[in-house]
Amino acid sequence: MGLFSKPIKTLDDLFVHTLQDIYYAETQIVKNLPTMIEKASSPELKSAFQQHLTETQGQVKRLEQVFQMHGQPVKGVDCAAMDGILSEAKEIMGDCDDDGVRDAAMLSAAQAVEHYEMTRYGSLIAYAKELGRNDCASVLQQTLDEEKATDKKLTEIAESRVNKKAA
Amino acid sequence: MGLFSKPIKTLDDLFVHTLQDIYYAETQIVKNLPTMIEKASSPELKSAFQQHLTETQGQVKRLEQVFQMHGQPVKGVDCAAMDGILSEAKEIMGDCDDDGVRDAAMLSAAQAVEHYEMTRYGSLIAYAKELGRNDCASVLQQTLDEEKATDKKLTEIAESRVNKKAA
Repeated sequence: MGLFSKPIKTLDDLFVHTLQDIYYAETQIVKNLPTMIEKASSPELKSAFQQHLTETQGQVKRLEQVFQMHGQPVKGVDCAAMDGILSEAKEIMGDCDDDGVRDAAMLSAAQAVEHYEMTRYGSLIAYAKELGRNDCASVLQQTLDEEKATDKKLTEIAESRVNKKAA
Repeated sequence: MGLFSKPIKTLDDLFVHTLQDIYYAETQIVKNLPTMIEKASSPELKSAFQQHLTETQGQVKRLEQVFQMHGQPVKGVDCAAMDGILSEAKEIMGDCDDDGVRDAAMLSAAQAVEHYEMTRYGSLIAYAKELGRNDCASVLQQTLDEEKATDKKLTEIAESRVNKKAA
């Protein structure tokens, strides 16, 4: 979550701030995924990133819908955690000459992104329910389900690497 | 994961670098948890943080064991993602006057920490297996199991907040 642009006095403030944080994070992911798609060597990883880009574009639209439902302007705030995860991913892609090692590192970076998103969507859903906004919670739950499915797929790709190596 | 102190040429380099990254992260958590324990208002959150501090101290020792098993010096590297998550947690604790909102925000920050750890330990275990180091994977798995249990407990605390509110 980013540094606070305004003081967090109420749970509603915290909900809106977390929405802004994850909105920034999702838009950064949309910006960074095309390079990851390009640099991925394994066809299954490339395809997983490609599918995740399409999904993430849908998740950005879903967040815009929640801002609107909650009567708030669509806005992002800097998120140091996501910036850190993505700057590392970029550095690996530039530094690593070996296709297999670069794929392993990008897989790990993508899972760090997924886990960050899962935890923030989980919190947003809890806040929304506590605020009596089950309508917002329901929209956010769709994204959380997608993030969990993506993480599962990335884990399967990682495990298939291990199994290939063991074979 | 932090910025690379040396180029990542092999999967072994990536494994060692990720060990250094999570070692830094765990030691930062040990430094930050006492303040979170102090600031937590709900007794169950305070107790969960207290137990997690004891666990984290054990996880640091387990990492030192893995460094030793793998013939590497114990060393940390800066981790921008963990620094981002923790700087936000600190900012909330300073900014927020309402006990309940502060607890909600700290709960969310603690879950972001857990998810970061889960994803990195998951990657470390995959790398260790791929490198044929099932002995290291087995030690790291113990920590991953603890992190998952902690995250589950934090989710239960978050849900009990929601249920209390609904009651």
